[in-house]
Amino acid sequence: MPLNVTIIGLDVLGGSLGLALGTLDPSVLTSGRPVITGWDPDSRAVRDARDRLMIDRPAREITEAVADADVVFVNAPPDQIGSTFQQIAPRLKHGAVVSDMGSTKAEVLAMAQRMLPTTVDFIGGNPIVGRSGTLRDAAIEYFKRSIYCLVPSPAARPQSVDTLAALIEAIGAKPYYIDASEHDAYVASVQHLPLILSATLLESVSRSGGWREMEPLAGEPFRIVTQLAATNPAVSSAICASNSTAIAARIDDLIRLLVEIRDNLRNPDQIETIFTHARDIHTQLQAAQPNMRPGEDAYYGIAEEPPSNRGLSGLFFGQRKRPDRGKK
Amino acid sequence: MPLNVTIIGLDVLGGSLGLALGTLDPSVLTSGRPVITGWDPDSRAVRDARDRLMIDRPAREITEAVADADVVFVNAPPDQIGSTFQQIAPRLKHGAVVSDMGSTKAEVLAMAQRMLPTTVDFIGGNPIVGRSGTLRDAAIEYFKRSIYCLVPSPAARPQSVDTLAALIEAIGAKPYYIDASEHDAYVASVQHLPLILSATLLESVSRSGGWREMEPLAGEPFRIVTQLAATNPAVSSAICASNSTAIAARIDDLIRLLVEIRDNLRNPDQIETIFTHARDIHTQLQAAQPNMRPGEDAYYGIAEEPPSNRGLSGLFFGQRKRPDRGKK
Repeated sequence: MPLNVTIIGLDVLGGSLGLALGTLDPSVLTSGRPVITGWDPDSRAVRDARDRLMIDRPAREITEAVADADVVFVNAPPDQIGSTFQQIAPRLKHGAVVSDMGSTKAEVLAMAQRMLPTTVDFIGGNPIVGRSGTLRDAAIEYFKRSIYCLVPSPAARPQSVDTLAALIEAIGAKPYYIDASEHDAYVASVQHLPLILSATLLESVSRSGGWREMEPLAGEPFRIVTQLAATNPAVSSAICASNSTAIAARIDDLIRLLVEIRDNLRNPDQIETIFTHARDIHTQLQAAQPNMRPGEDAYYGIAEEPPSNRGLSGLFFGQRKRPDRGKK
Repeated sequence: MPLNVTIIGLDVLGGSLGLALGTLDPSVLTSGRPVITGWDPDSRAVRDARDRLMIDRPAREITEAVADADVVFVNAPPDQIGSTFQQIAPRLKHGAVVSDMGSTKAEVLAMAQRMLPTTVDFIGGNPIVGRSGTLRDAAIEYFKRSIYCLVPSPAARPQSVDTLAALIEAIGAKPYYIDASEHDAYVASVQHLPLILSATLLESVSRSGGWREMEPLAGEPFRIVTQLAATNPAVSSAICASNSTAIAARIDDLIRLLVEIRDNLRNPDQIETIFTHARDIHTQLQAAQPNMRPGEDAYYGIAEEPPSNRGLSGLFFGQRKRPDRGKK
C-alpha cells in the first residue's frame, strides 16, 4: 500500500517536497510511490501545485487533507504551526506521523505534545536548504544531499521515525538526528543570528545621520552583509519569538565580542589576533565539504556540489587586500 | 609635456590604475598620455607590472620612483602610509601632487601635513571599488563609473586638485569631494562596520561550544554574512586603528539596536517594525542606481552596470520565506 503523504503549505519548500516524493521511482520505497495530498490557505497555490504535478490530490479543507494521511508535513510559517496543529488534531488518523518544517524545534515539540493526540507520533523536522535562485525550477533536486534535522518527540515510536526517515532519504536528503535544545542553540547561531545581524546592520546605519550621503559609499561589502534584510519581516519576527532564549544568548555573546573589539580598536595586535582566527575559521568553512554531518566522510560516495556562493569566497574588502607577496 | 605619474604599491588597485592611465587615448588629457612609474617593496611585483604593461618605468628605489613625479599615488596598506610619506618626503618635486588610496582620510591628512613638505599638495583619495572576481583581467575598466572620494588638504592649490581630478575622470571614475571627518564617519558605517561584523559573527559563533556540530547547519545565509571574514587580518586591524573613533561610535549604535532587539524578541510587533524598516531600506538600496553621487541623475548619460551581487538580491532566509499570497 502506498503511503498517503499530506503537505500543509504549498510554497517552494512544500511544493518541492511534493514534487520530489511524487516523482520517486516506485522501487525506492517498499511501500511504492507515495500519494501526495496538498493543502494551502491560498486555493490558488493548491491549483498551482496540482497543475505543476507537485501534488496528486488537491484538498479544499485542511481537515479533509489530513483525514487519510499516514504522514503529514506541516509546512507553516513559525507563528502558525500551533494553530495548524489545533486544526488538524481532531482529524488525524490513529498512528499517523506528523512533522513540521520550521527552523526551531523545542517550542514546536512542546506544542505538538499539548495539541496533538497521543495516538499520533510527532517528529520535528528542519531541512537545511537555504538557497537562492528560482527554486521552483529545480524543485525535484531541492533536497538532494541536504541535511535534514529530525527531532523525534520522546513518545514517537521507532517505526514512525523509520517511516519519516525513509521519505527523507528517498528524496536524497540526509537525516540528522539531534536534540531539540541543541538544535535550537545551533540554529540560533548559524541561521537566526546572521539574519538578525544583517538587518540590524542595515537598520542601524540607515538610522544614522547622513544615510543619503553615505549610500554612494555603500559598495559590495555592505550590500553583501546586509542582504538578508530582504527577508520577510513577519517571518523574522516569528523566528525571534520562537527561539528567543537561544537567540538572546547568542546576541549577548556577540555584544561581548563587539565590546572587546571596540575597546581594542587602537590595539592592532589584539584586533589582528581576533580577525586572524576568524579568517582561519572562514578558510576551514570554505574548504569543508558542504552538507556533511559531523563524522560523515562521504554519504553517496560522489563529490558534493559546492554551495552556490563559493564564487564569492575570494572576495576581499574593497581595495585593501594585497596579494601575498611577503610585502609586510 | 606628459605628466609623470608614480604609483607606489603595485597590487591589483595600483596595477589597474597604471593600466587605465597608461592606455589612455592621448587626446583625453591636455597633457597627453601620462608616463607611469611604478614601485613596490616586492621587486617581483614591479617586474610583473612592467611585463603586463601596467607601468612604463619600473623603479628600483622608492626615492628614485618619486623624484620626477608630477603626481604620486601612495597605494600602501593603511598602517604603512605614514612611513611611505616619510620615505618619499625628501625627494618630492616642488609642486608635486600627492594622493593616497586608503579607506580613512582624517588620519592620513594629519600625517601628510606633518610629514610631507609644504612645497607639495596633498589630496586624500579613496576609490570605492570593492568588487570580487579576478580583477586583473578587467583592470583597464577597474575604475569605470566608480565613485572616487577626494579630500583636498586645506593648503592644496586648486590647480593641483584639478590635475588629480582630471586623472580620475580620465579613467572613468567620478570625483566625489567630501570632508575628511564626514568621509570617515560614512566609511565607518558602510565599509568598516560590515567588515568587522562579518568577522565578529564568525568568530563569536565559532568560539561557542558545539561549533563542529553546528557547522553542518551553517547554510548559505551564514556563509554570505560571514564572507568578509576572508579579509586580510593585518589590513582589518590597520583599518580599525586608523578610524577608531568613528568605528567605535558605529559599534555602539549597533550594540544599542542589538540590545533593543534582544529585549523584544518575544514582542513580535516591535521586532517586525524594525525588520520591516530594514527591508524597506534594503529595497531602496537595491533599486538605487549604483555608484551615483547624491543628486547625480546621470553622469555619462548611459545606464549604469548593476553591482555584481544583484543576482542574490532575491535571496530569502532559508526555507522560511513564503510567496506573497496574502496568506497571513
